[in-house]
Amino acid sequence: MAKKIGVLLSGCGVFDGAEIHEAVLTLLFLDRAGASAVCMAPNVDQLHVINHLTQQVADERRNVLVESARIARGEIQDVSAVSADDIDALIIPGGFGAAKNLSDFAIKGPQAQVHPQVQRLLEEMADRSKTIGAVCIAPATLVRALSARSPRVTIGNDVGTASAIESMGGVHMVCSVSDICLDEKNRIVTTPAYMLGPGIKDVAAGIEKLVSKVLSLC
Amino acid sequence: MAKKIGVLLSGCGVFDGAEIHEAVLTLLFLDRAGASAVCMAPNVDQLHVINHLTQQVADERRNVLVESARIARGEIQDVSAVSADDIDALIIPGGFGAAKNLSDFAIKGPQAQVHPQVQRLLEEMADRSKTIGAVCIAPATLVRALSARSPRVTIGNDVGTASAIESMGGVHMVCSVSDICLDEKNRIVTTPAYMLGPGIKDVAAGIEKLVSKVLSLC
Repeated sequence: MAKKIGVLLSGCGVFDGAEIHEAVLTLLFLDRAGASAVCMAPNVDQLHVINHLTQQVADERRNVLVESARIARGEIQDVSAVSADDIDALIIPGGFGAAKNLSDFAIKGPQAQVHPQVQRLLEEMADRSKTIGAVCIAPATLVRALSARSPRVTIGNDVGTASAIESMGGVHMVCSVSDICLDEKNRIVTTPAYMLGPGIKDVAAGIEKLVSKVLSLC
Repeated sequence: MAKKIGVLLSGCGVFDGAEIHEAVLTLLFLDRAGASAVCMAPNVDQLHVINHLTQQVADERRNVLVESARIARGEIQDVSAVSADDIDALIIPGGFGAAKNLSDFAIKGPQAQVHPQVQRLLEEMADRSKTIGAVCIAPATLVRALSARSPRVTIGNDVGTASAIESMGGVHMVCSVSDICLDEKNRIVTTPAYMLGPGIKDVAAGIEKLVSKVLSLC
């Protein structure tokens, strides 16, 4: 039986949703490893829509689940329908959506609230000692959700974000883009990806290691 | 000097734009090979917007260049600003956008018209004997644009599409998802990708070969 790995998306586009390269690379390395991806996203409006050409806020509304379906080619479900019993592990790609739509960390920093269904699933995963991988800025939302467990994560080397993570109860480790940070106790794997970049091949190196480690911990 | 390879996008999402996996894989393999991607798209409204969760047409308008910018992380230009002199080769990822926004092949079949700036760039590339790669359904638009040169291409094994390609003056070759079709005379490289699938690792195998062949022909 192929391992079933949840992929929690947060829209479709680096500035207001899931980072597309990180999400696709996650799907690529899961498929290459023989795992089955279970894509999901919260059924909620995006915080906002950013025109990715001008980087200005657009006067539009888009739904996180509907836009995430673009990355998943339609094969996606509402996160509220997913239990930790349905999956062997969970990976959260980055992009601003992970800190705007899965939580409001991008606006509220350490006082962020996590989307209730994302909070519920992350707690279930942790309670069952199932592995969670988080990419780019997604570890900030993960730490907010599981702060009582003092997760050890990386978002690369950004001092402000690292400080916010520590003030939420996490432990931040500096890490290069091609490497991963492992929290053995909490079974959490993180990699900086486009928090550092610079390019897709660099990001791919870290995500490939993350996927491999997540699968080895299932 | 890194080779500069144009990547012609057609939106962001398999049903109304560029196929996201195919586009990202193209960028990945270009970066790994040391080439520089020059992303571009036509500045025109999409034929329509498809809700990728329900696959229904949505009552929205979106711009091809603006949506393509999501895949390119904002680093993209209007195809009208790009000359064949600016790039060493051009690759067109698939997705319905390649047959809805770069041309109207998805609606008009062999009577399709190609977007004028796409037509102009493809003719310039052919006139200069510069290599063009086309993925998935994109070869149909390519054949329509360069029909007088009788391009030899693949879209996999779909009989209807293959027949339309032949009626536009092209030559269709059956090809597996992990392989490529090479037209040496016209310096055209094609691969079926999600015209066959089934999964991202299969599509990646063909696109990796396509990128490698395109670069070897520069």
